Formats: sequence, C-alpha cells, structure tokens
Amino acid sequence: MTDNPIASELRDVLDGHWLELRRRARAELPADVMLAPPGLTVEEHRARTTESLLKLAEMGYGRVGFPTAFGGELDYAASCILFEMQALGDLSLLVKSGVQFGLFGGAVARLGTQRHHAAYLEDIMTGRLLGCFAMTEVGHGSNVQELETTATYDDSTKEIVIDTPTEGGVKTYIGNAARDGRMAVVFAQLVTAEGSHGVHAVLVPVRDESGNALPGVTIGDNGPKGGLPGVDNGTFAFDKVRVPKDNLLNAFGDIDEDGKYVSDIENPNRRFFTMLGTLVRGRVCVGGGSGAAAKKALAIALRYGSTRRQFAADDGQDEIVVLDYLAHQRKLLPRLAKSIGLSFAQNAMTERLQALQGEGALPDQEGQRELESIVAGLKAVTTWHALDTIQACREACGGAGYMAENQLTQMRADVDVFTTFEGDNTVLLQLAAKGLLTDYKEMWGDLDVPGMVGKIAGQLSERIVERTTGRAGIQRLIDAATGRDDETATDSLAWCGSMFEQRADHVLETLGNRLRKATKDNAFELFNNAQDHVLLAARTHIDRIVLEAAVDAQQAMADGAAKDLLERVLILYALSSIEEDKAWFIEHGRITTARSRAVTAAVNDLCRELRGAVPTLVDALGIPEDLITAPIVQ
Amino acid sequence: MTDNPIASELRDVLDGHWLELRRRARAELPADVMLAPPGLTVEEHRARTTESLLKLAEMGYGRVGFPTAFGGELDYAASCILFEMQALGDLSLLVKSGVQFGLFGGAVARLGTQRHHAAYLEDIMTGRLLGCFAMTEVGHGSNVQELETTATYDDSTKEIVIDTPTEGGVKTYIGNAARDGRMAVVFAQLVTAEGSHGVHAVLVPVRDESGNALPGVTIGDNGPKGGLPGVDNGTFAFDKVRVPKDNLLNAFGDIDEDGKYVSDIENPNRRFFTMLGTLVRGRVCVGGGSGAAAKKALAIALRYGSTRRQFAADDGQDEIVVLDYLAHQRKLLPRLAKSIGLSFAQNAMTERLQALQGEGALPDQEGQRELESIVAGLKAVTTWHALDTIQACREACGGAGYMAENQLTQMRADVDVFTTFEGDNTVLLQLAAKGLLTDYKEMWGDLDVPGMVGKIAGQLSERIVERTTGRAGIQRLIDAATGRDDETATDSLAWCGSMFEQRADHVLETLGNRLRKATKDNAFELFNNAQDHVLLAARTHIDRIVLEAAVDAQQAMADGAAKDLLERVLILYALSSIEEDKAWFIEHGRITTARSRAVTAAVNDLCRELRGAVPTLVDALGIPEDLITAPIVQ
Repeated sequence: MTDNPIASELRDVLDGHWLELRRRARAELPADVMLAPPGLTVEEHRARTTESLLKLAEMGYGRVGFPTAFGGELDYAASCILFEMQALGDLSLLVKSGVQFGLFGGAVARLGTQRHHAAYLEDIMTGRLLGCFAMTEVGHGSNVQELETTATYDDSTKEIVIDTPTEGGVKTYIGNAARDGRMAVVFAQLVTAEGSHGVHAVLVPVRDESGNALPGVTIGDNGPKGGLPGVDNGTFAFDKVRVPKDNLLNAFGDIDEDGKYVSDIENPNRRFFTMLGTLVRGRVCVGGGSGAAAKKALAIALRYGSTRRQFAADDGQDEIVVLDYLAHQRKLLPRLAKSIGLSFAQNAMTERLQALQGEGALPDQEGQRELESIVAGLKAVTTWHALDTIQACREACGGAGYMAENQLTQMRADVDVFTTFEGDNTVLLQLAAKGLLTDYKEMWGDLDVPGMVGKIAGQLSERIVERTTGRAGIQRLIDAATGRDDETATDSLAWCGSMFEQRADHVLETLGNRLRKATKDNAFELFNNAQDHVLLAARTHIDRIVLEAAVDAQQAMADGAAKDLLERVLILYALSSIEEDKAWFIEHGRITTARSRAVTAAVNDLCRELRGAVPTLVDALGIPEDLITAPIVQ
Repeated sequence: MTDNPIASELRDVLDGHWLELRRRARAELPADVMLAPPGLTVEEHRARTTESLLKLAEMGYGRVGFPTAFGGELDYAASCILFEMQALGDLSLLVKSGVQFGLFGGAVARLGTQRHHAAYLEDIMTGRLLGCFAMTEVGHGSNVQELETTATYDDSTKEIVIDTPTEGGVKTYIGNAARDGRMAVVFAQLVTAEGSHGVHAVLVPVRDESGNALPGVTIGDNGPKGGLPGVDNGTFAFDKVRVPKDNLLNAFGDIDEDGKYVSDIENPNRRFFTMLGTLVRGRVCVGGGSGAAAKKALAIALRYGSTRRQFAADDGQDEIVVLDYLAHQRKLLPRLAKSIGLSFAQNAMTERLQALQGEGALPDQEGQRELESIVAGLKAVTTWHALDTIQACREACGGAGYMAENQLTQMRADVDVFTTFEGDNTVLLQLAAKGLLTDYKEMWGDLDVPGMVGKIAGQLSERIVERTTGRAGIQRLIDAATGRDDETATDSLAWCGSMFEQRADHVLETLGNRLRKATKDNAFELFNNAQDHVLLAARTHIDRIVLEAAVDAQQAMADGAAKDLLERVLILYALSSIEEDKAWFIEHGRITTARSRAVTAAVNDLCRELRGAVPTLVDALGIPEDLITAPIVQ
C-alpha cells in the first residue's frame, strides 16, 4: 500500500463501515501467525493452526462479535469483517477460527441462553474450550432437516440421550473434531415422551482434558482433503451418550421441569429455520472470506503480470510486459472489477446483518428472511467467483503460479470447498430464488428444494412484481439517462443498470409464470424442468444487488478521480456480466446484435483503459504487504 | 466394466486403433503400483513415485515407443496411448514416467543419433539412467527461442562448455531434477567460433552415482507445488560445466572435426522448430492424459450421483437421486459428452502422429506443421476441459468430493498444471490460430506470438479459404440434410456440423480480414486488439476438428443401438458448444432467436434422455474397476 491518494480513497470506500477494524487488522495481525509455510505435513499444519488460533485468541480476536455482557467486543457483524481480513492469511487458520468462534461459539451464543453463556463463552473466546459444530451427517449435508442423530429426553434422570442410529447418521466433515474439540454442538432430532420436535442443538462433551474420546463417543478422522490441511475435520458417532438436560441450547425450544417440550414458536418447521437463521452469519463470512482471498490472488497475479515479459513484438525490441496483452488483461481485469463490485455487496449485507441481529435489534422476520435469501445467493456467486479467479491468477502466473511458495495454489485448494460448506452453491442459489418467488414472511423450509414448488405455488401471484421496486441508486441513474436504452452509451452505468434490472425482472417474471402452473401432481417435474431457469433467476438477482450496492457506494463518494475510476471499474464489471449473458439479451429483444458486438468492443476498450490504473487498483485492495510473500512479486 | 454389449461396442470404438494396447494396460497395470495413497508427505510421495516408475520399467512399459532397433517396443504413438492409460492412476507417476521415457528418452531418441542411442537408450528404458529435460528457464517458459543458457564449443579440448549467465537463465520446474536425475538434456544457445547457432540440446551429467551434484552443477528443489507431489521438480544452474563434444544431440545440427557448425537445415529458425517439432508427442500425451483423468472423474461423480439422494419431492416420499435433478445432469452430462468427443480427436491425432513420425514415415513438412498446430490447440482445449470437469465432479460430490480418499481433489490439483506445461494454453491457442492463417510449410517460429502478425501479413491471402475444404464425414451429413439450415432439426448432427463449420469459417475469414491490414508499424497493436478473435478462431477450429473426428468414428460403426447412442452423445456435445456461443450465432445471423432458445431446450431434453444411458456410458469409458477406490462409489 502506498500514499497514492486515489488508492487510499478507494480503499476507504471499499473498507466501508468497519474501516477502523480493517485498519487495525491490517496493522496488527502478525504475518508469522497468519501465514503457514508451504510443505507442512498434515500433522504439522494442524498443530501450527491450533497454535496460531490460540495466539489470535490471546490477542483478543476471539472476542469480536460476542455479546459485550460476556466479555465480547465490538459488534456482531464485525466478526464477519475480521473473517474477511483473516482470509488474507492461511485459510486453514481462517476456517479453524471460524469453527471455534463463529460456528461453535456462535451457536452457544445464539442458540443457547444465559446459563450457557455464563458457563462457556469466556472459555470459548479465549480458546480454553475448543469446540465443534456437528451438523452435517454422512447421509445429509444439504437436507439438514432430515438429520438422523437423535436426542431423546429421559425424564427419569433429567438427561438427554444422544444417539447415532445408522451409518448415515454419523456426523462428518466436522471441523475441530479429529484432533482438538472437547465439546460439540450436536444437531439432532429432539424426542420427548410426546414425540419428535425436529432438529435441535445440544452441547455434548466429546473429549476429556487429556484429549481422549469420552465413553460412547467414537471419533474418526476425515484424513487428507483437497485443501485446508490445517483443519482437523472428523467424524462423530454417539452410542447413547447421556448429557444433562441443561445442555440443550434452549433459546428457541426447551424441556420444562415436567419433561414437556415448550417453545414460543409453534410451527416446528418455522422453529427449525429460525434456529438456522441465526446462523446466517456463517454464510456472510464464507462469502466475504473467499472474496478476500480472490483479491489477494489478483494482487499477486496483477503485480507479476506488470513485470513479467515474454515475446518481443519485433526483432531486437524488449519483450512485452504480459499485462499489456489483451488476452492477459481479459483474464484478470474483469475479475478484478467483479471482485470490487462484490466487496460492496458484501459490506452492505454485513451492515444489514448487524441491523437485524446486532444487540438491540428489533425482530424483523421479513427482513431476516430477505437477508438469508440474498446471503445464500451472494455466498454462491462469490465463492464461485473466488475459485474461478484464483485459478485464473494461477494460470496467469504460469509455472511460477504452480509453485506453492507463490501462495496461489494453496488458496485455490482451500477455497474450493467454500462452494460446498455452509450450503452447496447450487442449493443456495435455489434458496435465493425461492426468496424471490414467495413472500419472505412465508418463507420457511430452508433448503427444501424439490418440494418447494408445490408448497409455494399458491403464493406466487403478487409477489413478483413488487420485488422490482425501490432500488434507489441504480434507478436514479437509469431515470437520469436521456432517451431510450438504445440511445444510451454502452459503457455507462445507467445503461448497464437498466440491463441488469430488465434481465432480473424478466427472468423472474417468466419463471413465476412457469411455476404458477404447478399442481400437486406435476410440481416436481415442473420444478425440475425449470431448474436452470431457477438458477438464472437467482444469479441475475444477485448481480443486480451487487451492482446496486456498488453504485450506491460509488455515488456517495465525493466527485473526483477516485469516483471516476470506480465508475469505470463498475462498468467493466457490469459489461462483462452482460457480455456473458449476451445471448439472453438478444433473445429477449433487450439489445440488438449491433449493440451486442459493441458490448464486447467496450469490454476490450475498458481493459485497455484500466490497464494503466492497475497499480492504483491493486493498492486499493488493501492487502498488507507482509502477507504477500510470493517470491514472484518481491 | 460389464458385459453390456452396447457399452463394449462403444468402448472398442473409443479405444480405437490401439485397442489391444489399451486392453493389455487395463488388465496388466497393477493398481498397487498405479495408485498412491492420499496423505503422503512430499518426500514419501517422491520416493514411492520413483519406485513405481522402476516397477513399470521392469514390466517393460518403458520400452513402448522407442525404436525397436534399440530394444524398444510397439510403435512411436503407442506411447501416447500408454500415457492415457497411465493417467487413470496417480498423475505424479504419469508425469514422472513422461519425463523419463517421453521427454528425456524422447529427446535422446529423436534429437540424438546412433552414438547416443547405443550408449543410453537401454539404460533409459530400464530406468537405470534417470534423466531430465532441461528446457524452461526462470526468464523464459513460453519464449524458448530466447533461452539464456549457453553451450560454447571449445575446439582446443573438443568440449562444450555449459553455462548459466544470469539468474533468468537458471533452468527451473525441471522434472526429475530435485531428487533423481543423473543426466539432463540441456537446451542452450550453441556458440562456436563462428558465432551463435540458436538453441540446441546437449547431454549433461548432473549427478554422480551416489546422487551428489557434479562439480559446477548447482541443483535446487522447487519445493511444494499445487499438485504432482511425487514429481521432484527442481532447478539447475551451470557454472562452465564441460562435456565432450559428442554429447551434443546432433540429429539436426553438429560440430565437425574442424570445430565448424554443420546442419542440413540452413535457416536457424527453421532448424530450431524442426527440433521442437519432434517433441510434439509431449503435447499429444498431455492432452490425452488430462482427457483420461477427466473421464475417471466423471465415472466417479456419475456413479455417486446415481446413488446419492437428497430432498424428497413430497412429504413421505423417498429422497430424490441427485442425478435425476436437471441441474446435476447439466453439470455432468455435457462434460461427459465433450469428453467422449475429445477422445476421438485424440485418437485421430495419435494416428496422425504415427503416420508422420513413426518408423519408415516419409518426411512431410506440411503435414508435420499441421499436426503441430492442431495438437497445440487440442492440448489447450482438452486440458482446460479436464480441469473444469474434474472440478465440476468434485462439486457434484459435495463434501465427500473434497475428501482425498475419493480421488478427485488430487487429480484436480495435478491436472491444473497441464494447462501450463508443454506450452501455456493461451499461447498454444495462438499457435493453432497461426497455423490456420499461414501456409503450414511456411510456418516457422513456434510460439512467437506478438511478432507473428507482421511476419505473416503477406501470406494471409489465399490460405484461409483453402482451409475450409475437405471435411469428409461432417460434410456428407450436412449435404445429406434436406433444405435450409433453419429447416433441419436442431438436435441433428447435420445441423450441428453445419453450425460448427460456419462458425469456424466465418471467425477465421474475418480474422484474416482484420490482420491483413497489418503494416510493419501497426502489426503488434493490430494483433493485440484482435487477440480475443485469434483465440476464438483457434477454439472454434479445434471444436470443428473434434466433431469431425467423432463423427467419422461414429459413422464407421455398424448400425445399431451403440451407434445411435453415440450419435445422441455427440449431438449433446455439439449443442452444448453451440449453446455456449449462442450470442455469436445470433449476432452473425446463423440462428434466429427462436432457434437459439430451441438449442437450450434441446440440451435439456438430451440431458434427460441420456440420463438413463449413464451406466452404459460410464461403462464405455473403460476405467478399470481396481483404479476406482473412492469409498463413495464402492
């Protein structure tokens, strides 16, 4: 990072609301803790990750996002920002600390009550109690409502009996399980004498102080993975393990003194998804973390591309800097633009999370469901973008990019599974689409996808048009543009915004028309035949939200060079997206074939134009110098 | 593999000309040698890989492709087929044996003469002499003509002095260098008293019998990489290392008794690319190997997708098999279809390689250049396809796909660099385009891309039209289709073939028109502005060649169910490609918007239709059962 004023201004805009926390993290997070040297064995990497986790806890970073009443610091959503900043280091450490403070700690904080907070939060924040979030089972990753583990209440002893009835019910891929976790938040079907009450979370000790599995708990090691070598993912099987009734995390459902199940939320479905909803932060984090990793990869590839030379244009001349080739610009600059666009959406969702779930927030079920829906889609779009971008960066650095020391390959391997954990991306896009098709306040049934059409068919009518109102920033731009779409400059935010709006609206409207034909008998077939349409609706909706958030931030800037530069970057982001979907725009009469060719020409022009701004833009990404150790950019 | 007669017939067609060798490899290659357990350390993996390499050599597989006069076996191109079969095992072993027998051994066989053959080939084939192919340098990967290492002839001692003059001239990423290689084929600028003669290859001993670096040779270890952990990539720096004059691999250029440089090929440029041309086999192998890995990944993901269930369509029903979801079919089936299509192109190029470079082949410079051009493009298309496909398979298997034991992540990590080694894909696509724009017999200057336009501008005129003639299989189909394009069924090979032809022809013709405007002054700018057009020309040309090869093979089958099934698979491949390029087809008036929508509908229909044939198609891929150890498909 330099003193370039345009870069600083852009960096501040990208830093957004939690600017101070980001600055503090940049200055404080110690590179020797944050990074892991390449080439460690799995055991070494795990040990180092645990050690680094404890160092972060010692620095107080474990406290960010927990209630201040129990020694927490800052606000709830700040933990997402911290997650983003930590994603600039070793992603094993990121995920390990996400499991400890976010998933395990978050579940205790959000699903538990006073008695759990008092008993555990301090030890969780300091890392004295390492724990697990045991949701996924062998048989059920996406469809968590059908988990098989049971938590049966035994009123005679006031205990809950945790049991794994089948092979498919074994908990798997659980972070912190294979090596370190001493306690687990176990998601299980809660059963009382009255019957089953659906999935609930129970605190279950899994290891004793010396690290041995407790009686009845069988712990397995998932072994080597495609990445995240420092995270000790493992399995749990429970053989009638007894825990006190008080171990039920009882914020949304409890067992009373008479052994009766009680809850403020009557509908079990709704109860389950209210519990899950408190965990939406995990998806905000995963999106933000992968986005940050993509920016670091771009910083490396763009800096290398600015110095690496290959081939001379003419005999006797110097070889050409590879970033001066259009193909190289095409590989990296639209991805840089998209990374910047996504950052603003990420900031906006983090702020919304704070408004909805921060201390003192008033309940807003519709707002909560809307947030869940957008965050699901944004997580999918961002993690795929990150995977694609890091890979493109690796290739752009050639053989050097494949050397672990240049930091790209481990990032790529680690980010891979971000497209799967906290919800499979394809399933999450469907969830986002579902949010568009139904009233948010009626939207229950998180990931239940094939069944959704039959259930929501009746609600499809008014919702869809309503969705298209109330977009301030973009709409102002569009309205201000004179004349018809085909008279507006291709490389203007107004035109791009109009295209994004029209695409999202039309895709959603026609999807509604298709699905409205559902009857009980044909619902699955109808849904299945429209599945690509469903995914497109989600994607185009998220694109719109990203552009809206980015334009809002850009419009709020003071006039000047930084604002102008950001405008050009956002146009590149938007035009690249339009270019990818060109066929759709022509098919639906939104652009002529002449305009379509102009889009490609404009993307090329913008790449050439922004080539000169690359140092400023890389600077604006705000990657701390000491976290970039790749020899190719030293 | 089963006895399903349709699957067997398809497998035989896919096996093609070297069917017997493939069968032998399937039956013989021992899984315990071919596979490496996940989770080895780099050192363990390297040791195991060397051991396995020697076992393969012991079984005689090191002999395939070497001249029979020196104890070689089978024919030259058979080694490519063997490479494909080995790619179904651990890819570290594949690359290690590719370095030993293909690159190192191949260079000695092809660039060396009788004296080198007699002295070294037997030891190379048996693995007694492990060696390296030292071409790439820190400063030059793609632009190998500008290598900095020098090989200076000292007539006073009849020795050649190998020297690394700068940091940029250090050899790097050299397989077999860090641990095992005792000798290296070093590519260096050959200098005699008369001056420089361009890049030549010299045999340089690098380690003594006990594995210590020889005097003047500095050996480094590239350390951990993004994949291929079992391959010991390393660096060489030479400090005035002296080797006897006889160590010059002198098939194309030599130093005579008077210390004078002599060569049958006068033009140094042409000489260099004639040498490189003999190494085209490497690119054939890399394409074939990555394609084979993609097929194995598909076999795993498709089998898992056929049993894994998630979400019920309705309460109380069984959950749905994930491959019954359209989105899942869309993820895997077009990639399966493309994998099958690419196999036929791979077979065709392997046969052409044999015809051009096999024992007794007559020199055919134009044919050789054409092969190089197509192979360059096919390597790029296939390796990107493989990378994309293995990743899609990983995601399609969810969290289970991320576990190393399920075999997908290591494959993905290994194949990554296939897009870079043996030529960066973007550079190779440009090379393929160059072949289309110039007369092959005039095509010298392998990878010199930016300079190409100025040099070839004069040759652009007649060439381009000529290129569009002489496609037997596809053209017959197109001619047989009645009526105009817009009356032919969308899901017919005839229509797809016509679209492929029109796209490739038009893209090339318009590219020619753009580049023809080149003058000495604007050549680079003109080329650079057209770079995306250049890449599209290459890609569409390769698509056409793939479809041609596949249709030729399909048309040659006996009428029946297998032939019909293959036809549907090839249509899916072709339609998916047309779908990706929809915008181009509409923009250029080749399809209406109505037809464009019909293409997407037809892809969906074909996915549903071919869903039922998945077991047969997976069977036809011919992946030996014992090489699929992924627990998710056991």
